[in-house]
Amino acid sequence: MIIYMARDKNHYSSILEKLRERSASYRVASLYGKTLIIAWPDSLAEGLSDPSVEAVYRVRKPYVLTSREWKTENTLVNVRGVEIGGKRVIIAAGPCSVEDEEQMIDIARRLKSLGVSILRGGAFKPRTSPYSFQGLGEKGLKILKRISDEVGIPVVSEIMDPRDVNLFREYIDILQIGARNSQNFVLLREAGRSGKPVLLKRGFGNTVDEWLNSAEYILLEGNGSVIICERGIRSFETGTRFTIDIGGIALAKKLTHLPVCADPSHPAGRRDLVAHLALASIAAGADMLLIEVHPNPEKALSDSEQQLSIEEFSQLMDSMRSVARAVGRDI
Amino acid sequence: MIIYMARDKNHYSSILEKLRERSASYRVASLYGKTLIIAWPDSLAEGLSDPSVEAVYRVRKPYVLTSREWKTENTLVNVRGVEIGGKRVIIAAGPCSVEDEEQMIDIARRLKSLGVSILRGGAFKPRTSPYSFQGLGEKGLKILKRISDEVGIPVVSEIMDPRDVNLFREYIDILQIGARNSQNFVLLREAGRSGKPVLLKRGFGNTVDEWLNSAEYILLEGNGSVIICERGIRSFETGTRFTIDIGGIALAKKLTHLPVCADPSHPAGRRDLVAHLALASIAAGADMLLIEVHPNPEKALSDSEQQLSIEEFSQLMDSMRSVARAVGRDI
Amino acid sequence: MIIYMARDKNHYSSILEKLRERSASYRVASLYGKTLIIAWPDSLAEGLSDPSVEAVYRVRKPYVLTSREWKTENTLVNVRGVEIGGKRVIIAAGPCSVEDEEQMIDIARRLKSLGVSILRGGAFKPRTSPYSFQGLGEKGLKILKRISDEVGIPVVSEIMDPRDVNLFREYIDILQIGARNSQNFVLLREAGRSGKPVLLKRGFGNTVDEWLNSAEYILLEGNGSVIICERGIRSFETGTRFTIDIGGIALAKKLTHLPVCADPSHPAGRRDLVAHLALASIAAGADMLLIEVHPNPEKALSDSEQQLSIEEFSQLMDSMRSVARAVGRDI
Amino acid sequence: MIIYMARDKNHYSSILEKLRERSASYRVASLYGKTLIIAWPDSLAEGLSDPSVEAVYRVRKPYVLTSREWKTENTLVNVRGVEIGGKRVIIAAGPCSVEDEEQMIDIARRLKSLGVSILRGGAFKPRTSPYSFQGLGEKGLKILKRISDEVGIPVVSEIMDPRDVNLFREYIDILQIGARNSQNFVLLREAGRSGKPVLLKRGFGNTVDEWLNSAEYILLEGNGSVIICERGIRSFETGTRFTIDIGGIALAKKLTHLPVCADPSHPAGRRDLVAHLALASIAAGADMLLIEVHPNPEKALSDSEQQLSIEEFSQLMDSMRSVARAVGRDI
Repeated sequence: MIIYMARDKNHYSSILEKLRERSASYRVASLYGKTLIIAWPDSLAEGLSDPSVEAVYRVRKPYVLTSREWKTENTLVNVRGVEIGGKRVIIAAGPCSVEDEEQMIDIARRLKSLGVSILRGGAFKPRTSPYSFQGLGEKGLKILKRISDEVGIPVVSEIMDPRDVNLFREYIDILQIGARNSQNFVLLREAGRSGKPVLLKRGFGNTVDEWLNSAEYILLEGNGSVIICERGIRSFETGTRFTIDIGGIALAKKLTHLPVCADPSHPAGRRDLVAHLALASIAAGADMLLIEVHPNPEKALSDSEQQLSIEEFSQLMDSMRSVARAVGRDI
Repeated sequence: MIIYMARDKNHYSSILEKLRERSASYRVASLYGKTLIIAWPDSLAEGLSDPSVEAVYRVRKPYVLTSREWKTENTLVNVRGVEIGGKRVIIAAGPCSVEDEEQMIDIARRLKSLGVSILRGGAFKPRTSPYSFQGLGEKGLKILKRISDEVGIPVVSEIMDPRDVNLFREYIDILQIGARNSQNFVLLREAGRSGKPVLLKRGFGNTVDEWLNSAEYILLEGNGSVIICERGIRSFETGTRFTIDIGGIALAKKLTHLPVCADPSHPAGRRDLVAHLALASIAAGADMLLIEVHPNPEKALSDSEQQLSIEEFSQLMDSMRSVARAVGRDI
Repeated sequence: MIIYMARDKNHYSSILEKLRERSASYRVASLYGKTLIIAWPDSLAEGLSDPSVEAVYRVRKPYVLTSREWKTENTLVNVRGVEIGGKRVIIAAGPCSVEDEEQMIDIARRLKSLGVSILRGGAFKPRTSPYSFQGLGEKGLKILKRISDEVGIPVVSEIMDPRDVNLFREYIDILQIGARNSQNFVLLREAGRSGKPVLLKRGFGNTVDEWLNSAEYILLEGNGSVIICERGIRSFETGTRFTIDIGGIALAKKLTHLPVCADPSHPAGRRDLVAHLALASIAAGADMLLIEVHPNPEKALSDSEQQLSIEEFSQLMDSMRSVARAVGRDI
Repeated sequence: MIIYMARDKNHYSSILEKLRERSASYRVASLYGKTLIIAWPDSLAEGLSDPSVEAVYRVRKPYVLTSREWKTENTLVNVRGVEIGGKRVIIAAGPCSVEDEEQMIDIARRLKSLGVSILRGGAFKPRTSPYSFQGLGEKGLKILKRISDEVGIPVVSEIMDPRDVNLFREYIDILQIGARNSQNFVLLREAGRSGKPVLLKRGFGNTVDEWLNSAEYILLEGNGSVIICERGIRSFETGTRFTIDIGGIALAKKLTHLPVCADPSHPAGRRDLVAHLALASIAAGADMLLIEVHPNPEKALSDSEQQLSIEEFSQLMDSMRSVARAVGRDI
């Protein structure tokens, strides 16, 4: 249950006291310019009257703040001037892993000139095997920061450790929570508290419902700058690396006000399918795309099979622009 | 192994005799204007020399005739003048089940005027429960035939019984093999022998590889007019009825020369998602769409949740036209 | 809705007339020694009063005759004196395909001496690829019949074509419907009408609910001798060929009165896992097991990876006896 | 590649120097009484000769230390005298969450008297929704510690935050990594460094291969006391909460020397199926079971549907003893 306060902070104490009397749980959060009390379970918070209460929203979904029932209009996430969730489809691109500063700055410049708004690059890499390349770590974050400043492009990078939040706050513009950590609730809460925009990937074993509940953990910390990202789920099909859930993208757009991103690279798993999945995602309503591009894909230290070359990506940009226009959007 | 004959039929006997001597299996088929001998296993057919042999193709896929390794150019399936697999994206639409002749003729006219090229309608309905509406049967086929003639539009309808092939030959332009019969090899063979174009749905528990192998059963009977159709697979996600495998559509286009159709209605399972999946399918490269449209969806005897109204479909046609153009195609 | 008739056939006409007046659908069936009218939908059949009606059962499941709500006690399927569904766990075993008569008669004798009650062997083989061995067909059925008579053991074999029912009636004791035909409703109905016991495999893409609905098609034809068989479902796990759904076996036992069989060979996909799955199935409550055994597994024409040798199977019989006793059953 | 050292620590420097020269990665670990160098990738570590090297093992699996290729005999994990992985099947039981000290101590005593060797209880609960009961946290750990001491039974409890390792070291005997954190590599590493026995659940979206790779992260920190636990995977079946992968248990036993545990409660999702899954797991070869038991399941604050009452559990213990004996084990 979401409780809107009528006027000012002074009135808090009385309504919170009443919730405590009823043994209800609650959280006070500032979200989208409003101060709210989220109280649960509904059965205990119901029928509460207090002069400070302006309105009460009862949401029938398991997630409340994330739901479009409560907030009907699209949320815009602003990252250093780049607006995600509006008419423009935002393209984030870059190599799977940060490998080398010079290479990285070169690709950042070229991608920006092609119309890319956000640079992606992994510094801490979650790898199935401990013997795979684990990323450059903090050194990678610093490289990203220097490039971001020099080229003038915000960066997104994956955080794996809740103890790294301050490090990421310093160097990175969007904290990415990866698929393997999509129900790492400790990390979700810390990302929420960081105040930074968060890109939350859907776990490959998670339902749309679980994905939105994970977002709720971030919003409940008072952080409304969340982009949710579909990156393929597990199915029995092995011809592609994962099964991109295009229906899940469309469904998520109905259920939540948050911007929905698509990652066509991981589900494709092979270079020649990435463009098809990217265009399909835009056609289905995605607000943002996250695409792996590498100056020399064959030599990439991770995911070499699925990264596009600059030339392939440049062609894809043209196609994406056409499809975006066809569904009433820009790139 | 595919063996091309050099000149004329007279030479057959000698090469077939050699295959028999080696205990190889073989089938003679006329496909795409060529007479071929398909011989297997490769190990037994290998190294065969005969003056009648012009060329031999060794295919590394489990399916041979279906593969793009053998036939690189796209196959065009011609249904009474409607060409599937070319630049134009073909739209097939109509109600889930044929329920009533007047209603059906009215909707056929309206759909045709909107640009629909093929009418769909179920007469024999495969239903999970024996207590669900099973379709009008032969009566439904006759209604479809009359409408087809009167409105001037070819029709596609599902065949479930191999003993019904002659019935379908008389009344129906495209034999649909449904998802539940996608590995009913008896039915596949009979559909192959019918000589009629076949629309083969992918089973919701089948891999892309199995789907293409099922098509091979039809081609091996000398019937090359096969359209394969993705209609959603089973995954753990329950927010949509099935998970449309957009990656599977893109992958199938790489692997086979046959036209690939998408059915966005069944995976959506709910009206408000159908358009998103339809547009995504076109963006991903589908050659044809099969969409459920009903004059009064709420009153439909089957699949009422997912059928579009004429108005909704009319809007979708406009959007599909835009997306088709964006990817270099027409509707 | 199931309607029990009070006395004799004379009264039929009146109640059926009433159902027709209400536009309800119905079917008269003799099942388990009772004559029943199954009428649907419930809404139309409700509140019907007639002197001939003794009792009415309303079932809340989508399947009616298959459900334990209606028939609470276990159904025993009797196959030439072998009783399936009782205290004794019945073992059916034999090679994947009938390949050779001498080999087959030898293995039949050895299996029988080890305690096997039913011989399995495929004559018509549903194969993913048309180029794989398709079985000996009618010749295989005749071999099975001769062996069955000579050795004194009933046989189960898979039927794929509804036109083959008379052939199977002549030669085979239990008609097997394979996983790929588990929703081939035409074949289900013909198997129902055959009057022969039917072993119905669960489709690898089908839910327990769909599996039980498929059984309902058979029962509705008045054939109550149905054994349902779990053989593994599709999941993302590729380390085993299929994922045996042990929970599905246990669940099915709760939902239906029909005997539940398990096939541990197909989900294992490799010889060294078959025993584990067989023992687990018995521990979970399976009434019957269907196991692939071959005199020379490495040389088998199909499924060579997963067939047990006689020696391996002999050991497994001992283990199965122990586990059966541990859960209060015999073998 | 695993390098065994011939004699003493002095020789380290030389071989490590050689690995550094070749740019190979390496880790020195003490495992199962041996000091090892794990070096990778194989291509860089190959052909290394040094007087200090006694033997080199090349493992063809992606995981090395976890594999049975390297260590063929079963690993025994010793938890305060309870030996997991030996002839005896170890039963861990207790409520989903620690709710109340008195209730907990009572159930601990009753479970111990029934033959339970390890007490389970959740203090930090990973819940899909932030509005569900999150556990008592540190207070719950302290309750578990007091009970453990008073009743004389080791306890297992789930850790979610890498910063809590010291807390868990003080209070808990086995650190459980839950399904949602099974690829939280940061947490895996910290659990490895803790030196405490770890029970690693398989993620419901993870393959057996990924599960074993996750265990490798723990072993690579020098902690060989790892029990891996199957708790059901996601499939399309919704009749049970998850699909217990009995084949995965059997497969894991072949691939790894680590003890394999089964959790029958979560995949069942309903009380009346738990026993079937428990017995099947033992029959399939599980070394340990983890079962939810609650003094009053209907009033449980989490997972109330699937927790057994003491009476139900007591009966299950008898059945488990019988099945364990039938497969040559004890309880």
